[in-house]
Amino acid sequence: MSDAKSLHQNSIIIDGLIIAKWERELFEDMARGGLTAANCTVSVWEGFQATMDNIVEFNQFFTENSDIIRPVYTTADILAAKQEGRTGIILGFQNANAFEDQIGYVEIFKKLGVGIAQMAYNTQNLVGTGCYERDGGLSGFGHEVVTEMNRVGMMCDLSHVGSKTSEEVILASKKPVCYSHCLPQGLKDHPRNKSDQELKFIADHGGFIGVTMFAPFLKNGIDSTIEDYVEAIDYIVNIAGEDQVGIGTDFTQGHDQSFFEWLTHDKGYARRLTRFGKIVNPAGIRTVGEFPNLTQALLNKGWSERKVQKVMGENWVNVLKQVWGE
Amino acid sequence: MSDAKSLHQNSIIIDGLIIAKWERELFEDMARGGLTAANCTVSVWEGFQATMDNIVEFNQFFTENSDIIRPVYTTADILAAKQEGRTGIILGFQNANAFEDQIGYVEIFKKLGVGIAQMAYNTQNLVGTGCYERDGGLSGFGHEVVTEMNRVGMMCDLSHVGSKTSEEVILASKKPVCYSHCLPQGLKDHPRNKSDQELKFIADHGGFIGVTMFAPFLKNGIDSTIEDYVEAIDYIVNIAGEDQVGIGTDFTQGHDQSFFEWLTHDKGYARRLTRFGKIVNPAGIRTVGEFPNLTQALLNKGWSERKVQKVMGENWVNVLKQVWGE
Repeated sequence: MSDAKSLHQNSIIIDGLIIAKWERELFEDMARGGLTAANCTVSVWEGFQATMDNIVEFNQFFTENSDIIRPVYTTADILAAKQEGRTGIILGFQNANAFEDQIGYVEIFKKLGVGIAQMAYNTQNLVGTGCYERDGGLSGFGHEVVTEMNRVGMMCDLSHVGSKTSEEVILASKKPVCYSHCLPQGLKDHPRNKSDQELKFIADHGGFIGVTMFAPFLKNGIDSTIEDYVEAIDYIVNIAGEDQVGIGTDFTQGHDQSFFEWLTHDKGYARRLTRFGKIVNPAGIRTVGEFPNLTQALLNKGWSERKVQKVMGENWVNVLKQVWGE
Repeated sequence: MSDAKSLHQNSIIIDGLIIAKWERELFEDMARGGLTAANCTVSVWEGFQATMDNIVEFNQFFTENSDIIRPVYTTADILAAKQEGRTGIILGFQNANAFEDQIGYVEIFKKLGVGIAQMAYNTQNLVGTGCYERDGGLSGFGHEVVTEMNRVGMMCDLSHVGSKTSEEVILASKKPVCYSHCLPQGLKDHPRNKSDQELKFIADHGGFIGVTMFAPFLKNGIDSTIEDYVEAIDYIVNIAGEDQVGIGTDFTQGHDQSFFEWLTHDKGYARRLTRFGKIVNPAGIRTVGEFPNLTQALLNKGWSERKVQKVMGENWVNVLKQVWGE
């Protein structure tokens, strides 16, 4: 156990997707979990100005919790966070809705620290279509948004995006894109899970895959353990190779039922898209603070220390540097 | 004449207020005028999102005119602009309206390059009152906005602000504040002009005065010449000293009548506040490109080269560094 602990402590640990309730308690749990940096969702259904309000809230978090968190604009900031023993916060969107109909808003948000944005969340928007409805592909406006995200250095995320739109973004983007948090359909059939073919396609085009552990999409559902999570990670590494895979937990820590109701309805209030049922993270990694158990579980799987370090964070840093350019 | 030309070329030249029609032609005229940097208005009556749209437009200008202009976030950027032979653009507001009711928007705009903001434009807003109506002073919310502007490093501008609100901002601010573009009441009585007492008060509190040449507020109105402008600058330097005074032309170059109608009505459309009549800048400095004539005219007044350099730009750089911290 002590080997895993020191390996975890000495590694860059990146979580490619957290959508927790943002509060000091959570940031303290990030510290316990030894997180170097995390992609933290600040927009799902919100429009431009409501998203700005969320960023304002985060700016206040940065001021009030500067002992344990710091903003991330570049990968140098991630390395600085490691040095300082703080957790770097990458602001991220799970929907392009905040861009509204203005391509110029992409650069505005980039300057405010938004380093990654999902092209659609579950349903159709101006850019493309999510994974819970018929997918007409990347729109003309969507093509312009991809070009602008490439230009300013904002990563395209496709986790909740439909299959056709995803494929077209992968082909349109001149920089690596990602599924920041997904699971393989090969282990469980679900509209949110990605087929072997899709996983191979993004990897073959230089893209990246962050593996989630959201229990309803795992083989054993809410009875899953950290070993089920490791099985999924290993499954995807076997398809995409050990350099293009990372972690993207999808921690929702601290949220109550009303938040999930908001998430699972189109636009936050319209038709219901899905029903998660009870949400319990896999035993062994129920909270952000238990992150070190994942390093242990990957070593238990027989992975080398090098391989563990890459998947636990180094790979994310490399791909973000390619996209951000710094 | 050749001495004035080379002095101008070798000096930092700052215009503390331009509200021209933003287009390449104007940026080219800034180059002709040898402008090192200028405070360029991107918000008057606009709310939060409409102001963002103006900033988006400016971001596009930066991309398309990067041969002659560059953004300014710090005074180091101003010095870099001088080195590069480009004009540095400081984004500025002439009204706090874009902050709407959110103190957090101050930091958002600061991060996007807004280095200076006027607390009110001619009329009352959430912060205080402008110079064209009864002035109830700085509001409670206004006090919080001043504190936040101090914290993030955004300069408080009081040019169009009422006398009482101005005094209270001067007293409340822990960093220097300014009249970025004003004229002395001692030379012409006008609600927009500042009394000797007001000029002395801001200077005694470490504040700054940029002198405008807006013809309707000059002694000789639209018959004014650059010598009338120099008289006004000299008048204010004699009150405030040669270290706390600079230039703030208020160039409106390129705008048509509909723009002035918008400016002179409360909120851009409500009651009429004033009527400028015909607007002609003083002979000798009708356009931004004629800026070198001002250096010449100050030398003609008998000023030393050192004094000219300070007032033409160095003083602005010093006070901005105090406010911005970098």
